[in-house]
Amino acid sequence: MSQVKIVLVEPSHPGNIGGAARAMKTMGLNRLVIVNPKRFPDPQADWRAAGALDVLDGAEVVPDVSAAIGDCHWVIGTSTRLRRIPWPVVDAKQMAAQIVAMPRQASVAILFGREDNGLNNDELQRCNLHLQIPAAAEYSSLNLAMAVQVVCYELFQAGQAKPDGLDAVWDRRPATAAQLQGMVEHLESTLLQGGFLNRNNPGQTMRRLRRLFTRVQLDETEVQILRGIIRHFGHSGPK
Amino acid sequence: MSQVKIVLVEPSHPGNIGGAARAMKTMGLNRLVIVNPKRFPDPQADWRAAGALDVLDGAEVVPDVSAAIGDCHWVIGTSTRLRRIPWPVVDAKQMAAQIVAMPRQASVAILFGREDNGLNNDELQRCNLHLQIPAAAEYSSLNLAMAVQVVCYELFQAGQAKPDGLDAVWDRRPATAAQLQGMVEHLESTLLQGGFLNRNNPGQTMRRLRRLFTRVQLDETEVQILRGIIRHFGHSGPK
Repeated sequence: MSQVKIVLVEPSHPGNIGGAARAMKTMGLNRLVIVNPKRFPDPQADWRAAGALDVLDGAEVVPDVSAAIGDCHWVIGTSTRLRRIPWPVVDAKQMAAQIVAMPRQASVAILFGREDNGLNNDELQRCNLHLQIPAAAEYSSLNLAMAVQVVCYELFQAGQAKPDGLDAVWDRRPATAAQLQGMVEHLESTLLQGGFLNRNNPGQTMRRLRRLFTRVQLDETEVQILRGIIRHFGHSGPK
Repeated sequence: MSQVKIVLVEPSHPGNIGGAARAMKTMGLNRLVIVNPKRFPDPQADWRAAGALDVLDGAEVVPDVSAAIGDCHWVIGTSTRLRRIPWPVVDAKQMAAQIVAMPRQASVAILFGREDNGLNNDELQRCNLHLQIPAAAEYSSLNLAMAVQVVCYELFQAGQAKPDGLDAVWDRRPATAAQLQGMVEHLESTLLQGGFLNRNNPGQTMRRLRRLFTRVQLDETEVQILRGIIRHFGHSGPK
């Protein structure tokens, strides 16, 4: 499970950061990343972390989501809302099974949003997969640290069940989130420049293309091929 | 799930009582019993309960464990320690499956012990079953409210008893194999015509592109967008 980072995006309450660290450690995880926290470090965080101070001390604090996920190959965002453009959605158990089935060298980030607002649309669109924790329809708002606990619990359970040697075999390294982002931006600028998209009325096309390419878990060679095609045709496209 | 009571035995921190109430409500449970709490009611409990104040307000406070479990048909005690006299032990998932399989009129209590000491031997021996939440060997001490969250989460999942796989909701029909094939052939002929691929020495690029688009399970709109791009740039590409 050393391949999995837990990323808290702009948490407001230091108690939740500590609670998340403790939740992680009880399930054998220790890579915590905190994006632009309101108060951290903080005595409340230390108190709630209890025996998991080492996870808190080792936490990485970064200014934005890009810095948190840039080197990751697979990004999962927790989400409660239904989106206008649906994204691939898994529950916690399915997510854990998928992560356990990944090649060992694949690095995974699981994003947890703000206490009041969750992840915003931009952040959710950077994710390969959306995670919805099963919860009661009448009140589905899990506390942030509780959501971390449930996710880490499922990861721990899936990891325990993992028989040796089930690593997915692939012939290329998976593309990182940064490589994916670069490709998508290249595609977008080319589609605008070539007149396929209208800058003043872009519609949903680009979001749909982004969803497609985040869904598929590209490998590095595929990103190179796609960028080759974009470059080749982009240069000669209609203005 | 109205047959299940969550019983907190002598909790010290009111925050944990509130956290437990919230955890319960997110998983559709609402019968909370508190045995001899140190501080309750308390503003800390209210704050941590967030949208689950009703669970807190409806909580029953009793002086001892007997009063909490007297009317129950089945009592489960959470335990982390191994006992000198072994007891039937289940994990959270097994426990949930057993409860769901019980007759609807059977009343069940799940006991959670003190933050520092858990349940004592007398209390554990009042239980039909001991529950151990799977956790990391190095640090297995879940916070009290977190333990309640995990247990209620498993109960909720078992109660959902997923009928026929939850069909992912998607906004477009999936593309057929024929639509996919048409798109890939269109792409290939355009890449050949445009000089991106060499007809005499095609290499593996096309096979990789095909693997990519086969892997992702395209929807119909995505196929249309991709064909639109291919057409747009293909017509004007270099010969």
